[in-house]
Amino acid sequence: MIAKSMKPFLEGSSVIRAMFEEGKKMAKVYGEENVYDFSVGNPGLNPPQEVFDAIDYINHEMDPHLVHSYPSNSGYESTRKAVADDLNERFGSDYTPDHIIMTVGAGSAINVIMKTIFDPGDKQTVFAPYFVEYGNWASNYGAETIVVPASPETDFQPSVEGLKAALCPEVKVVIINNPNNPTGTIYSAETIKALCDVLKEAEKEYGHPIYIIADEPYRELVYTDDVVPFIPDFYDNTIIAYSWSKSLSMPGDRIGYVAVAPKSDEAEEFIAAAIVANRVSGDTNAPTIMQLIVERCIKARSDLDYYKRNAADLYKIVTEAGFEALYPKGAFYLWIKSPVEDEKEFIAAAKDERILIVPGSAFCCPGWVRASFCISNETINRSAESFANLGKKYFG
Amino acid sequence: MIAKSMKPFLEGSSVIRAMFEEGKKMAKVYGEENVYDFSVGNPGLNPPQEVFDAIDYINHEMDPHLVHSYPSNSGYESTRKAVADDLNERFGSDYTPDHIIMTVGAGSAINVIMKTIFDPGDKQTVFAPYFVEYGNWASNYGAETIVVPASPETDFQPSVEGLKAALCPEVKVVIINNPNNPTGTIYSAETIKALCDVLKEAEKEYGHPIYIIADEPYRELVYTDDVVPFIPDFYDNTIIAYSWSKSLSMPGDRIGYVAVAPKSDEAEEFIAAAIVANRVSGDTNAPTIMQLIVERCIKARSDLDYYKRNAADLYKIVTEAGFEALYPKGAFYLWIKSPVEDEKEFIAAAKDERILIVPGSAFCCPGWVRASFCISNETINRSAESFANLGKKYFG
Repeated sequence: MIAKSMKPFLEGSSVIRAMFEEGKKMAKVYGEENVYDFSVGNPGLNPPQEVFDAIDYINHEMDPHLVHSYPSNSGYESTRKAVADDLNERFGSDYTPDHIIMTVGAGSAINVIMKTIFDPGDKQTVFAPYFVEYGNWASNYGAETIVVPASPETDFQPSVEGLKAALCPEVKVVIINNPNNPTGTIYSAETIKALCDVLKEAEKEYGHPIYIIADEPYRELVYTDDVVPFIPDFYDNTIIAYSWSKSLSMPGDRIGYVAVAPKSDEAEEFIAAAIVANRVSGDTNAPTIMQLIVERCIKARSDLDYYKRNAADLYKIVTEAGFEALYPKGAFYLWIKSPVEDEKEFIAAAKDERILIVPGSAFCCPGWVRASFCISNETINRSAESFANLGKKYFG
Repeated sequence: MIAKSMKPFLEGSSVIRAMFEEGKKMAKVYGEENVYDFSVGNPGLNPPQEVFDAIDYINHEMDPHLVHSYPSNSGYESTRKAVADDLNERFGSDYTPDHIIMTVGAGSAINVIMKTIFDPGDKQTVFAPYFVEYGNWASNYGAETIVVPASPETDFQPSVEGLKAALCPEVKVVIINNPNNPTGTIYSAETIKALCDVLKEAEKEYGHPIYIIADEPYRELVYTDDVVPFIPDFYDNTIIAYSWSKSLSMPGDRIGYVAVAPKSDEAEEFIAAAIVANRVSGDTNAPTIMQLIVERCIKARSDLDYYKRNAADLYKIVTEAGFEALYPKGAFYLWIKSPVEDEKEFIAAAKDERILIVPGSAFCCPGWVRASFCISNETINRSAESFANLGKKYFG
């Protein structure tokens, strides 16, 4: 009685989410402080004070009818204006409120974009390692996913030649997630420019737009001097999907947006369709309190130093235990090379030490594992002994 | 560049929403107090005090990490328990927290259910007049909608013979919306029993389950002695889609649930699939603050007397102006017979009097119009002169 079309989703049920549920069970058995749960990107940090203040203001100072009744499907104009103004101030762009659609987080934003673009039989291109939900979301609309293989030799900067090989006339979307989940790397301006040049050629050759979906929930989470390129500067047909889950440490609250680049092809028609896509998805509109929170917190940020310290501490612990890892430049993930070919063996051994990490195969990149360091610094430092024990198993 | 599959959605773009946007424009021109906007079911009432108190408690007394981080995809166990316990207490049912999935409002709940059930080529049956978004939502999953014609002769109680004629082996879902939008009627226990008997026979004949989606955002909004039948008492394969939009006057906040009847076929498998459907929709989970609000407000209600008074006042105004209308037993809509065959002419004439009402054809029931009376009682009473003028145009 379950739809046949649900079967692939059920079989490919999220490894990360399963690990998350398991972590909660293990915490009950061993005590929360004795489980080192690096599985889900679930910020351990509280939202900044501005969020709490905004909630008080919304609850006590604003007109309750405005706060709780239906806004337009695209969201409050004041919220969309705050988003557009902030983008323009930071990136010299020229968004208006009409280019912005408020959504139920970035996941919903990407679904809105995909529903607007994809017909059954269309394709998208993604760069491994990638968040596998991208494939599930595309298949919601009958679209297939072509994966560009990972490039460990360039520290996981995506391969331009790989992109060329993964294009065909059916490709309507290329997803770029920068800073990157799961590698913690930042794609350079040089990489982005080279990828965009390939896509511009392909647009000409195929005679239709290819949209870049710039999935940017980690845009503000950068721990080095690297600069995250603003893709609309390189490529007109760029649609940004954003979420405040990470920058304000509130992933449960589900708030994000779609930003359609003003220069993109027939932007106005695209936006009108995307607003309808947002409505007919059943979400109707992004939750109103959340819209009003982010409007008042547009400049607020989670404590970056917290993540920066976690990045440094976990990298040190893991490499001192003998493992090879990529130093995290952004996002909040440490990307670790499995000491054995089948990283699932490594993950099982880690679990014996009460360390929960996620297999690279869940990101289409076996042989590596992901550790989320958004948890408390105390937990990270308490995990040192377990990592050391784990290292001894492999390196004696 | 817009998906071909978006075209039907764009062409059938919501008449109600267009009216809503127009109402906002007219309010700017004529002043808010001079526009009688009966278009959208957007409660004019503020949420009850419990909602404001709950927000304060959540913001100041609860662990911020619990409040703002990811819950399970199905929602907080404590929230699901509150929902299950409340249903059991009110209806003598035996839901557990595991039968409940928290969603982004009822729209999202229905989409989750449909994604779980529908394969392309499947069908659903709905009773006119009905909320046309049902058809859009089904077509998200490639399913078609068969409409049972309206029965004005029985005051819009759905036709049992009509249901029989509208069934075929491809039908997997029948939607029942009670109390009803747009007629304001309540389907009686007798009607529900007769419909369920037909469906039980059809399940046997076709050899597969037919699910009733009980869309019940108006369950608590009843103004007469009529009782809203609890459909799981009549039919095992019932899945409830609920929203607090109306009962707590907070439609912008987007919070609802799916409740899978414990006795439904392979309930456990269904629930597991529905949780995945909720995740891969991109929503990930229902907004956390909203979950915690409704958990603390499970017994709270909007002021029913407010709507009851509105129902009586608007009915009086409209019928005294010479129009025929159905007395609203529930929901917050007055269903008015158009004095001319093409109700769009009537709607244009009403607009000249700054009265905004919605055509029955938007509910697959031309010749009638819907007036939402969830706006302020002052606005309703101020509209009397305009309705009287409108009546004079038709009845002299």
